[in-house]
Amino acid sequence: MTKEIYVDNSATTFMDDEILNIYLDTIKKYYGNPSSLHQLGVESERLLKEGRKIIAQTLGVSEREIYFTSGGTESNNLAIHGTVRAYGHRGKKLITSSIEHPSVLEVFKDYQRQGYNVVYLDVDEFGFIDLEQLEKEVDDDTILVSIMLVNNEIGTLQDIVNIGRIIKEKNRRCIFHVDAVQGYGKVELNVVKANIDLLSISSHKFHGPKGVGGLYIKDKTNLAPIFQGGGQQQGIRSGTENVPGYYAMAKAAEKMFKLWDVNKTMGNLTNMIKEEILKNVKDVMILTPEVAAPHIMTIAFRGLKGEVLLHSLESKGIFLSTGSACSSKQKGISHVLKAINLPKEYQEGAIRISLSRFNNEEEIKYLIQSIITSVEELKLFI
Amino acid sequence: MTKEIYVDNSATTFMDDEILNIYLDTIKKYYGNPSSLHQLGVESERLLKEGRKIIAQTLGVSEREIYFTSGGTESNNLAIHGTVRAYGHRGKKLITSSIEHPSVLEVFKDYQRQGYNVVYLDVDEFGFIDLEQLEKEVDDDTILVSIMLVNNEIGTLQDIVNIGRIIKEKNRRCIFHVDAVQGYGKVELNVVKANIDLLSISSHKFHGPKGVGGLYIKDKTNLAPIFQGGGQQQGIRSGTENVPGYYAMAKAAEKMFKLWDVNKTMGNLTNMIKEEILKNVKDVMILTPEVAAPHIMTIAFRGLKGEVLLHSLESKGIFLSTGSACSSKQKGISHVLKAINLPKEYQEGAIRISLSRFNNEEEIKYLIQSIITSVEELKLFI
Repeated sequence: MTKEIYVDNSATTFMDDEILNIYLDTIKKYYGNPSSLHQLGVESERLLKEGRKIIAQTLGVSEREIYFTSGGTESNNLAIHGTVRAYGHRGKKLITSSIEHPSVLEVFKDYQRQGYNVVYLDVDEFGFIDLEQLEKEVDDDTILVSIMLVNNEIGTLQDIVNIGRIIKEKNRRCIFHVDAVQGYGKVELNVVKANIDLLSISSHKFHGPKGVGGLYIKDKTNLAPIFQGGGQQQGIRSGTENVPGYYAMAKAAEKMFKLWDVNKTMGNLTNMIKEEILKNVKDVMILTPEVAAPHIMTIAFRGLKGEVLLHSLESKGIFLSTGSACSSKQKGISHVLKAINLPKEYQEGAIRISLSRFNNEEEIKYLIQSIITSVEELKLFI
Repeated sequence: MTKEIYVDNSATTFMDDEILNIYLDTIKKYYGNPSSLHQLGVESERLLKEGRKIIAQTLGVSEREIYFTSGGTESNNLAIHGTVRAYGHRGKKLITSSIEHPSVLEVFKDYQRQGYNVVYLDVDEFGFIDLEQLEKEVDDDTILVSIMLVNNEIGTLQDIVNIGRIIKEKNRRCIFHVDAVQGYGKVELNVVKANIDLLSISSHKFHGPKGVGGLYIKDKTNLAPIFQGGGQQQGIRSGTENVPGYYAMAKAAEKMFKLWDVNKTMGNLTNMIKEEILKNVKDVMILTPEVAAPHIMTIAFRGLKGEVLLHSLESKGIFLSTGSACSSKQKGISHVLKAINLPKEYQEGAIRISLSRFNNEEEIKYLIQSIITSVEELKLFI
């Protein structure tokens, strides 16, 4: 195998070498516990603050509104559990969409089992939520709405600003959580304009270290902690801070925002994939809509099995996913593909290509050619 | 400042260079998401398994009983919340000691507020729990007992085997959780003989990466997850696995167990501190008992302020803690020093010296001399 083309960046990314060096440096120099009273602790505390500041700047918010976690799953869980536990007295209604990540959806299902009135908003064939339904559903009893910025399986970019506006117009005290794990740094986002109260990000999706995430918590939002303990991070997230990890995530975020124009390049490349596949392959559906994250392109092939296509492409040195990696080992059809009402004969034939700034045009041309060839080969066996 | 002597290893450790290299290597080579179906995912999954196996071997348990977390606080929270949520129907009584780490104690306090019958076992002047009280308290209504192996502030090593025996004799279904964050790899521990069901460890306490921990969950123990999501780690701990972090922790653990005899050396050094301080300083109390972890030595100086002594020693290049780093920024007297009934005039004058295998005799001699000098200097100002 001569090539190794990694286009599974929505599952996870490799670390940027420059960020890895910063990480390494920080591990060596800033090993003190920020709670320690001596200089090594003080320096670690200072670096934590610096990290918070960097993340805050990327979001246009205040550094005291940034909290660190162990990843997207913790951030989403903390946002939802934290809200329900803190504001459960306000009402019993929780709203989300039918295509959220499992780390949101499973928490809502849990509250549904506990007797909460949980509404899963419908989505159209492109994965966009129904804004009229949202407007109808948000009422005085609604304590939380959680909507993802970019869908992890098909890349749909929700109209977050209008969603936020509708929520707050209907109930200004309703908390608005946005799972931005896939969209952060990839699509325009105005946290303040979108009326966002809580926003989750995950370091390993943008070439930072794994096991690190962040949660924006708007000032004056009360969140009940998931972890109780030493009272770190204002008591919102106890546990000795992973200072090098948090700082490296911040530097990875800073670099991603500095290289913002890469998103245009990735958008051109995913468009190229779409055009070439549509031109050269029959019985194919592009699941990613026009209004989507630039780095995701999900394609379904009629009658094919995504997993077989995945392994065929793997033999050509290409690494990608069927549906979402997070649930790819689970049986059955993805809840997202069901929600967008993908015709049955396409449901098993979806692959997700997710780019990073490290992919180039040559790779993508090879990828396109490989898909065309693999699909032709596999169709012989249908 | 010519020297830099770090003896705050119970707060956190620096990474072992060899482990850091392994970590770095793993970050570069094994970046795939274990949930991905392609080879990069499969390789990451294999490394996860290898990490679990290594940790399991250090504990003499099965690899399928090892779960990875983001650290000691998460492990303790998962153990306690997970047990109460899974076995809450069995009873309403929860038992712990009065000198646990905040990540245990605060969770118990929370359940107490929720109406559970929480018992905080008394400890004697050395921090040992009262086994007779334990025996009296464990009953059919008791669903969980959580006792730390080694106390983080004064090093007390509990009689875990007899504690486990008593618990199971009184109620064989009662879950026994051990917070081994400070004791793992430092003191003898037989998980099976001690009847332990759940055991927490934390990577950054033994020269592994920060933000990584582990939880041993005995076969057939049902634990409710804290995080809901993608269903990773048998659904017990959702979230994309931090493969390099988990693997590096395992390698750090492996090395610690390989270098077991270092514990004897550390024990000799802490004994030397004790003897020399008792010989050369008046109005001093050694808080660490004979039966303790080898690396911790906590000393209280009558009438002195620990924080002032800490900074005096810092000016001599020595880094250590007053009480526990996790709570050192919180006001008031440590709950541990209160629980052992330390005379009032000593309560504010405690410092904790916590060694690692990287400290040598020369450093400790300098440390002792520095303490003697600093105490003499400070006493002039009392």
